[in-house]
Amino acid sequence: MQDFSFYNPTRIEFGAGKIASLDQLVPAEARVLVLFGGESARRTGTLDEVTAALGSRQVQLFGGIEPNPSFETLMEAVTVVRRDNIDFLLAVGGGSVIDGTKFVAAAALFEGDAWDILTTMGQNIERALPFGSVLTLPATGSEMNKGSVITRKSLQAKLPFMSEQVFPRFSVLDPVKTYTLPQRQVANGVVDAFIHVMEQYLTYPDQAPVQDRFAEGLLQTLVEIGPRALAEPEDYQTRASLMWTATLALNGLIGAGVPQDWATHMLGHELTALHNLDHAQTLAVVLPEMLRQRKAAKLGKLVQYAERVWDIREGSDDDKAEAAIERTRDFFESVGVKTRLGDYGLGAEHIDGIIDSLQSHGMVALGEHGDVTPEHCRQILLASL
Amino acid sequence: MQDFSFYNPTRIEFGAGKIASLDQLVPAEARVLVLFGGESARRTGTLDEVTAALGSRQVQLFGGIEPNPSFETLMEAVTVVRRDNIDFLLAVGGGSVIDGTKFVAAAALFEGDAWDILTTMGQNIERALPFGSVLTLPATGSEMNKGSVITRKSLQAKLPFMSEQVFPRFSVLDPVKTYTLPQRQVANGVVDAFIHVMEQYLTYPDQAPVQDRFAEGLLQTLVEIGPRALAEPEDYQTRASLMWTATLALNGLIGAGVPQDWATHMLGHELTALHNLDHAQTLAVVLPEMLRQRKAAKLGKLVQYAERVWDIREGSDDDKAEAAIERTRDFFESVGVKTRLGDYGLGAEHIDGIIDSLQSHGMVALGEHGDVTPEHCRQILLASL
Repeated sequence: MQDFSFYNPTRIEFGAGKIASLDQLVPAEARVLVLFGGESARRTGTLDEVTAALGSRQVQLFGGIEPNPSFETLMEAVTVVRRDNIDFLLAVGGGSVIDGTKFVAAAALFEGDAWDILTTMGQNIERALPFGSVLTLPATGSEMNKGSVITRKSLQAKLPFMSEQVFPRFSVLDPVKTYTLPQRQVANGVVDAFIHVMEQYLTYPDQAPVQDRFAEGLLQTLVEIGPRALAEPEDYQTRASLMWTATLALNGLIGAGVPQDWATHMLGHELTALHNLDHAQTLAVVLPEMLRQRKAAKLGKLVQYAERVWDIREGSDDDKAEAAIERTRDFFESVGVKTRLGDYGLGAEHIDGIIDSLQSHGMVALGEHGDVTPEHCRQILLASL
Repeated sequence: MQDFSFYNPTRIEFGAGKIASLDQLVPAEARVLVLFGGESARRTGTLDEVTAALGSRQVQLFGGIEPNPSFETLMEAVTVVRRDNIDFLLAVGGGSVIDGTKFVAAAALFEGDAWDILTTMGQNIERALPFGSVLTLPATGSEMNKGSVITRKSLQAKLPFMSEQVFPRFSVLDPVKTYTLPQRQVANGVVDAFIHVMEQYLTYPDQAPVQDRFAEGLLQTLVEIGPRALAEPEDYQTRASLMWTATLALNGLIGAGVPQDWATHMLGHELTALHNLDHAQTLAVVLPEMLRQRKAAKLGKLVQYAERVWDIREGSDDDKAEAAIERTRDFFESVGVKTRLGDYGLGAEHIDGIIDSLQSHGMVALGEHGDVTPEHCRQILLASL
């Protein structure tokens, strides 16, 4: 186990009907801006339920936050916050809305050009407006962490920032709110959570048995419940486990004290930026061949993963690793997330552009050892055709 | 999964040498009272290391907090805090010192008779002094939770309280600080952590797959590392895993959203109060026969425990449950914690007194179903002779 710091002060209120607890969670005198994405929040009645729970508080709405939330849209929200002396933000939606709200919370109190929050990865954030979230889409874990990723369309840049100032004060997790999600978003959420765990787990054995067991437990649970979450959208218990699993996949716990990878995410970001694939689709394409490309360095953990998550007991270490990689690919396909570039209309002719973009973003030494080069990434994409 | 609230704002600083981080963790202008137990904190140099890290801050020491910390001793500390305008407390020790510090933190700002904190189980705590901890003994989890148990010698009463006001602001976990612990304390810590998990896990299947996997991961880890933690006291990685496992065993995470038992603890408390057994010794005596007595109600989870934690695959459900109970007993014995009343000089003639005491404390409907009676407890003790 490596040295670590762990801190996570977000309060979770979990269960059907918990939106009513907003009345206790949000300060009684707050002037609240409710941020959300598209029309689904309104159509499903969630927005009405939220505003009803907020009672007589002064409440304004700000809709239209996009998937891959944009600096441009969010700065409009910052203008509203400043103009109307908003003092509490409430995100209603999935990871994009919560990520965007984190940025608004920090930018509203930031002196100077708010874009600097991104260029310094959040290190210059000294304070932020308090905010909470009502989660409607289990996937990113943003509801219980301090990270956010923001896109600036005019610069074609997608950048992360982190700060303890942007932990949500609370997040309300009501599994019923996921019943009306499109299948594609649920499937993406399963894959996103799975690969969040893999980025923190599938590196090399490092004497962290509890972190390993927790990560394996999250993976096993996703394997068990993923297909059922799609087949039975109103099975409360399945959706409840999916929601809590996705939160725990990226709240800092399983990554505390262990090496981390994140190469799959970095390469995947380029596929979203250039070719507009969903985030989870990019991960499903990249991960299997990333694991195969790096099989030698990851062999110890691949074998452990094969045995403990997939119960693969036969064959050589290499056999087990190969079988586990294929099971992983099959799992993504089984929930309907395609794993080949060709499935998204991309061919060998697109690879140069992707690698150029990766290099231009300085992503030349990726992974837990910092030894994954653009040339490795080229081979990975070729193998993913 | 049941509805739940989860909140845990304690910051963890984990690793060798992390005591130096006290300089960042404790406010620069604080007037600090350092609370500790016996002379070992001084003898091992930990107290010197702590006071050195606190630099030029105004620091006083308060030693002598007992195992099963007493109201009487702690009120002396409250007097010091009030007299000298102490505004930050620092616990240096194990669960007893941290539990005691929680009480001092609340009592120092409490108006009225501080014993009311215990009689109301902490519900009347409105504020508390801020405090942190330097953990030296992995066992109770007090370093990252909001609970405490205090004994009032004059009343022969041992009572718990809980309050969000008494979460430690931070806890420093340095595995090296455990190297000099007596074997008995390390063994007790292994058993204590194991049974903390069991109280939150071994109830009935309730569709909480992630909580189950996490609990099983903690149990499996304790089984793997427990004997080695005793055999190789200076194996850093083993002690690191033991320390983090014991913290995670009772920080609210694995108990969120699941039924809980705690009957073993309630009966065990009587054995400590009347016959002065170590807390972990009482749990090791009670748990195996508690599981056997309640085998019918717990059968589903006992079989899951047998299969997943002990890899018992043969036989009927009853066979698996019986085998798992015996493996549990053998595990406690293997780390040197005896599991029979006779091992502690207690015989059948002591049982009436224990049951009378249990009843006088109102413990007449224990367990996850509230159906464990004093008569059941009598049978459990008879079977534990």
